[in-house]
Amino acid sequence: MKLVILQENLKKYLNLTERIIGRNLTLPILNNILLTIEKNSLKLSVTDLEITLEIWLPVKIEENGSLTIPNKLLNNFINQLSNIKDQKLILESKDDNLNITLENYSITINGMNAKDFPIIPKIKTNSALELDNSMFKLSLSQILNSAAFSEIRPEISGVFFNFTNSNEKIKNFKLVTTDTFRLAEKKIECSFKEKPASFIIPIKTITELVRLFDLTEKQTTKIYLDNNQVLFDLGNIHLSSRLIEGEYPNYEPIIPKKNQTKIIIDKNNLINSVKIASVFSSKINDIKFKINPNKEKMEIFTKSEYGENKSEINIKGQGEEVEISFNHKYILDGLSNILGNEAVMEFQGSQNPALLKSNSDDDYIYIAMPLRLN
Amino acid sequence: MKLVILQENLKKYLNLTERIIGRNLTLPILNNILLTIEKNSLKLSVTDLEITLEIWLPVKIEENGSLTIPNKLLNNFINQLSNIKDQKLILESKDDNLNITLENYSITINGMNAKDFPIIPKIKTNSALELDNSMFKLSLSQILNSAAFSEIRPEISGVFFNFTNSNEKIKNFKLVTTDTFRLAEKKIECSFKEKPASFIIPIKTITELVRLFDLTEKQTTKIYLDNNQVLFDLGNIHLSSRLIEGEYPNYEPIIPKKNQTKIIIDKNNLINSVKIASVFSSKINDIKFKINPNKEKMEIFTKSEYGENKSEINIKGQGEEVEISFNHKYILDGLSNILGNEAVMEFQGSQNPALLKSNSDDDYIYIAMPLRLN
Repeated sequence: MKLVILQENLKKYLNLTERIIGRNLTLPILNNILLTIEKNSLKLSVTDLEITLEIWLPVKIEENGSLTIPNKLLNNFINQLSNIKDQKLILESKDDNLNITLENYSITINGMNAKDFPIIPKIKTNSALELDNSMFKLSLSQILNSAAFSEIRPEISGVFFNFTNSNEKIKNFKLVTTDTFRLAEKKIECSFKEKPASFIIPIKTITELVRLFDLTEKQTTKIYLDNNQVLFDLGNIHLSSRLIEGEYPNYEPIIPKKNQTKIIIDKNNLINSVKIASVFSSKINDIKFKINPNKEKMEIFTKSEYGENKSEINIKGQGEEVEISFNHKYILDGLSNILGNEAVMEFQGSQNPALLKSNSDDDYIYIAMPLRLN
Repeated sequence: MKLVILQENLKKYLNLTERIIGRNLTLPILNNILLTIEKNSLKLSVTDLEITLEIWLPVKIEENGSLTIPNKLLNNFINQLSNIKDQKLILESKDDNLNITLENYSITINGMNAKDFPIIPKIKTNSALELDNSMFKLSLSQILNSAAFSEIRPEISGVFFNFTNSNEKIKNFKLVTTDTFRLAEKKIECSFKEKPASFIIPIKTITELVRLFDLTEKQTTKIYLDNNQVLFDLGNIHLSSRLIEGEYPNYEPIIPKKNQTKIIIDKNNLINSVKIASVFSSKINDIKFKINPNKEKMEIFTKSEYGENKSEINIKGQGEEVEISFNHKYILDGLSNILGNEAVMEFQGSQNPALLKSNSDDDYIYIAMPLRLN
């Protein structure tokens, strides 16, 4: 293998490959990156055996070949080059080692034969679903903080992708996350022509996918399903992942269909008030809302052994007075996901889940369970 | 106590007080900040019993008094106010608690009686030494990274302040640090009219002092000595500290008086090369320099189980060829302390300490011990 590549082109992607790898002590080869000449490009591949990232980079090829080297070492080296003017790196394999030359530097990285790298499963690329990147990124970022890794319930440790009623003119694609304390649902309209399908993608896969959108020049992402695998095709970047097995909880009944109290509130005012109140919250992070739609006021209370906080916000709304407590973190997470300046909050008494959404966007809802205090 | 204060004025200083406090589990009162009305100001005091920070802030006083509250809670609360427009906070003590009101917020922080706060020793403020802040800050920042905390040798866990020959027209004030692997010395000219004096100030005190210079509008700092205490007077900020007892090592004989090899090298080139080489350094951080003044070249080598690096830099110089190894961290620390673009390096063979300084500034020297490899 021999090629010429620009520093910047490598640098852009090596932090990403490092993140996929994590740190693998049991199988050291997984700490490696595989370099291969393919499709007139240099292909970078890393895998943790669950998630695989493949990136094709433009290079000047002088000789075909492949080898695998420690990703961290390559990343550390490339990061130290920021003050070096010479942009062109010459990469050349010698036996299973990689020689890198530039300016007055001559580097050798000890590598291994490409055969030692795990085989990456091929995913059949037919019947793709195609989504607009900016919309897809926004949607994923709205739901991601409501998911949490659970050893006991692996099926909720991911994002639920649910495509239904593909022939109707409705928003037929839903993204759902829950950690059982709160739930987020985002509706998207998409032209999925296949039969209804639903699958669960691990949190880590989605977290990494969200970062990739900023690194591609493509406007859309293609999603392919094959057996128990999913592939996100962003042009020169492919992210593939196993799916989570099991059935996603039947969450629909949890979504409140009616309310006893409904208010509209300035989102940023509420965020500020909850943040300030949180300083005086007790160990269970509790914050109490006392809502009076008639008086157009909401009071916020927190109290701990160190002190207490009381504040007041103007609201508009209708329905019954209600006094309800939440974990303040869940309220802040929900508010941070909402578009626009006005939040809508709907309550059914102090013991039932509350609904949070934007006053200007019906596609996203956030359900928070109240704290049931004595 | 009752007063009105601007958010910003408090915010500016509470991270500093938090740093002095650290985290004290054995004596919880040390996690507190003492608030006192004094000299028509609000005085903030924190102490870890070794270092004390006192700050006087302009406020509108409505009622005298004092109390002490947890610093962290006050700091967290003030930090959350960044999006609140109302700049004026009303602080009012009630029993031993502090009420804070602004806009629609009403806060109570549970406190304790000011009598419960440790007594802060008074330091006599006569016979001051006065130093220019920008020069003092620069000088301290040049020597600080060569000091390290040592349980075995407490006397080197600080910065050595050494005033000599006060009547001569020479740079009669020296700042010295060492961790036994390297040593830094900075000479300053100052008008110290008293008899020669030397003392050792703990690293933590100096680290915090360096941060204070950016928060004062004064051009100079006064230093007072009293028994085993030192006071840095920066106007509305006073930092006092115990001194380290014991005798500072007699370091003068370590400073090389002559050399067998002397070179001049571009500082930033060398920094880049050492950083790149460090990626391929072994566990003991060794980096090898092969210096040939006749060929006007310096070669840099590192090698580990993962790979190796070789690079070359142009130098000017005279004397013998030398091959010498260092811990790369110590070379980078030294280079980062040097002013100007050109570094001077002086060697006496591969086994003796090397000297590093700027080609345009004789007031600062850095001595590094070589690694003695097989």
